[in-house]
Amino acid sequence: MAKVKGLRCRECGKEYPAEPIHVCEFCFGPLEVVYDYEEIKKNISREKIERGPKSLWRYIDILPVEEPKVGLTAGYTPLKKAENLGKVLGLKNLYIKDDSVNHPTLSFKDRVVSVALSKAVEFGFDTAACASTGNLANSVAAHCAQAGLNCFVFIPANLESQKIYGSLVFSPTVVAVEGTYDDVNRLCSEIANELYWAFVNINIRPYYAEGSKTLAFEVVEQLGWRAPDAVVAPAASGSLITKIWKGLKELKLVGLIDEMNTRVYGAQAEGCSPIAQAWREGRDYIKPVKPNTIAKSIAIGNPADGIYALQVTKESRGDWETATDEEIIEGIKLLAETEGIFTETAGGTTIAVLKKLAERGAFKEDEVVVAYITGNGYKTLEVLEGHVKETIRIKPTLSDFKEKILVRV
Amino acid sequence: MAKVKGLRCRECGKEYPAEPIHVCEFCFGPLEVVYDYEEIKKNISREKIERGPKSLWRYIDILPVEEPKVGLTAGYTPLKKAENLGKVLGLKNLYIKDDSVNHPTLSFKDRVVSVALSKAVEFGFDTAACASTGNLANSVAAHCAQAGLNCFVFIPANLESQKIYGSLVFSPTVVAVEGTYDDVNRLCSEIANELYWAFVNINIRPYYAEGSKTLAFEVVEQLGWRAPDAVVAPAASGSLITKIWKGLKELKLVGLIDEMNTRVYGAQAEGCSPIAQAWREGRDYIKPVKPNTIAKSIAIGNPADGIYALQVTKESRGDWETATDEEIIEGIKLLAETEGIFTETAGGTTIAVLKKLAERGAFKEDEVVVAYITGNGYKTLEVLEGHVKETIRIKPTLSDFKEKILVRV
Ligand SMILES: Cc1ncc(COP(=O)(O)O)c(C=O)c1O
Ligand SMILES: Cc1ncc(COP(=O)(O)O)c(C=O)c1O
Ligand SMILES: [Zn+2]
Ligand SMILES: [Zn+2]
Repeated sequence: MAKVKGLRCRECGKEYPAEPIHVCEFCFGPLEVVYDYEEIKKNISREKIERGPKSLWRYIDILPVEEPKVGLTAGYTPLKKAENLGKVLGLKNLYIKDDSVNHPTLSFKDRVVSVALSKAVEFGFDTAACASTGNLANSVAAHCAQAGLNCFVFIPANLESQKIYGSLVFSPTVVAVEGTYDDVNRLCSEIANELYWAFVNINIRPYYAEGSKTLAFEVVEQLGWRAPDAVVAPAASGSLITKIWKGLKELKLVGLIDEMNTRVYGAQAEGCSPIAQAWREGRDYIKPVKPNTIAKSIAIGNPADGIYALQVTKESRGDWETATDEEIIEGIKLLAETEGIFTETAGGTTIAVLKKLAERGAFKEDEVVVAYITGNGYKTLEVLEGHVKETIRIKPTLSDFKEKILVRV
Repeated sequence: MAKVKGLRCRECGKEYPAEPIHVCEFCFGPLEVVYDYEEIKKNISREKIERGPKSLWRYIDILPVEEPKVGLTAGYTPLKKAENLGKVLGLKNLYIKDDSVNHPTLSFKDRVVSVALSKAVEFGFDTAACASTGNLANSVAAHCAQAGLNCFVFIPANLESQKIYGSLVFSPTVVAVEGTYDDVNRLCSEIANELYWAFVNINIRPYYAEGSKTLAFEVVEQLGWRAPDAVVAPAASGSLITKIWKGLKELKLVGLIDEMNTRVYGAQAEGCSPIAQAWREGRDYIKPVKPNTIAKSIAIGNPADGIYALQVTKESRGDWETATDEEIIEGIKLLAETEGIFTETAGGTTIAVLKKLAERGAFKEDEVVVAYITGNGYKTLEVLEGHVKETIRIKPTLSDFKEKILVRV
């Protein structure tokens, strides 16, 4: 596999072969996939990508997988010019990258999971697992069904019922852990040390995380091979935002774009914002918090990649912003009412943060700004209760229609 | 608009200009869009389509719209080779056309609505509406938000709560009518006679219905410009299935394919199967029924295009089959567990019917068979209650994991 050189510790730089490992033996730093960009540059071109499959696998030349084994339909979601929302926010070139319709489980997690499980199959695992705030569990369960892998998904017991059913339908073992996501994650790390299971976001994490780069690749291609001026993305563990940045840099490294001056902005829920807090206080380390927000999918109090996410916003001259639960619901409604896109709480957070950033002048009017909508509103339906208009009940007669509806128009 | 000649009555052949009308003044037959296929043939080619947008608008040359005004991201959904489900059913070339991830509202209705509302904007309407079993309302509400149209959606009052919230989030007026879909539809026809509103599936129906043809176009393109040997699709009003057939025939007419011998199979829920019943009894007319099924999205007792749907299966040498509520749930689970795709009750009906057809030898082992999955499981979550495995609750400790989970493996 010439394109992948191996793994490297993000902290001490020690190199490892491309195996199912994720932590440096020397300094406990996280491992990252290292590529031979000179080699990739020789093989890759815009034309080759454009001729590729209509999925994230069109970018296989910069992904750590030899051959896609699962998740063949993941990615390649719409990039929608958001004219209406742009008008509200004073932005002439606002775009929504719409992973609320990602295939098959309606969140960006279908990207990371198709890469992780293709790799897990390559490694010969017969059982896959994850620690999840909901979307990851849905996606792992769906892709294990496709791949015929045994499947165990671990979630906090208090998740939205929609996200629980969205896993159960694929018949994995769903383990509801009494505790926060951080408790779930700690437990899963212990299990991963004992059993030969592919925990996609633990021992397979270096490969898994690479899947998020495709959110950068697709946007650049969809903009006509041009890097946006600014992107806004939500952060939980901080992996997504770190990899969007890595993806943007790689496109320049391998010569697919000549310029890249993108600023990366991070969005967190006020009730769980350890990365944004560190940024505000000028810290380069994270103080773990106890989550308290309706945005359960991004409620990670002790984010594994938090410090790298901070580095991204620093390096790219971006910023962080947070949204209260009320603002998150307003964000969901604003996107629905202007663009006809129904997102979940994580997307509401992104839109609320986008709005705040726009209002405080973070973007120039003409800049190309992309907001990453990473999940679907049907999975967090319950937060809308009491926050939307009510239906009006009538009898099936013209007179009742006129009396109850037409008078209001 | 050279490509469209006008409208024509399906019954008496009388011709009309392309206006917002849907019924023949002479015989009350439904009107259909008529094209100048010679003209279209001159303009269209596989290459031109392949260079087009990644949405259903790549087929604009055979759609009754001059310029897309709304729904720019609709269509162009995955066609997934269903290896696992194919193995279960003894089919080597089974494909799923996956509109459960259609953009933006997760059903095939995004196709018909983007065509209908683009046309409504062309006609100068400022208010749009529909009579809906749920999915159509979701899509009309979303696209009205995009287009800045006033919006009224009419639904039976007993719909799934997910489908109601899935409309409310876009802030239309949701009118919950005490009655069946057929009551809703009758009321809306009366309203459409009195008000200048664009009811997408009533007075705009000739244009609306054309949107479903793209489900035929995309499949043929995705199969490498080859018509499938057989397709299975659900039927409520019968419009979808009628237009899939029209689309297949048009591809041959305009020279995009040389051969088309596709058999069309219709799927209905046993509890609401007026078309399948007519077929079984050899009738060429429909006896309306009172729906009684969990498959609410396809619970239409008096299907407007039922007789044309019957003609399609006759002409194409297809067949009809039905599924009980229990079989529908089994169908949802079978698709989830084999292919990792989570569909709603309409899709469960399609899979259950596909299974029955396969078991009774309707397909040869090597034939290319396409099942149309038209909606998403998150919108009918409630039917899974009591029909999936349960979560297993544990404390966040390795010992509790070993005691409660590992012992079961
Ligand atoms: C919808 C959604 N958006 C964003 C994120 C954040 O991802 P990350 O943990 O990579 O920061 C998650 C994580 O679960 C998510 O579910
Ligand atoms: C998911 C789904 N599939 C299929 C249909 C059937 O469509 P038609 O009325 O065109 O037969 C509907 C109709 O509402 C639907 O919602
Ligand atoms: Zn190290
Ligand atoms: Zn007539």
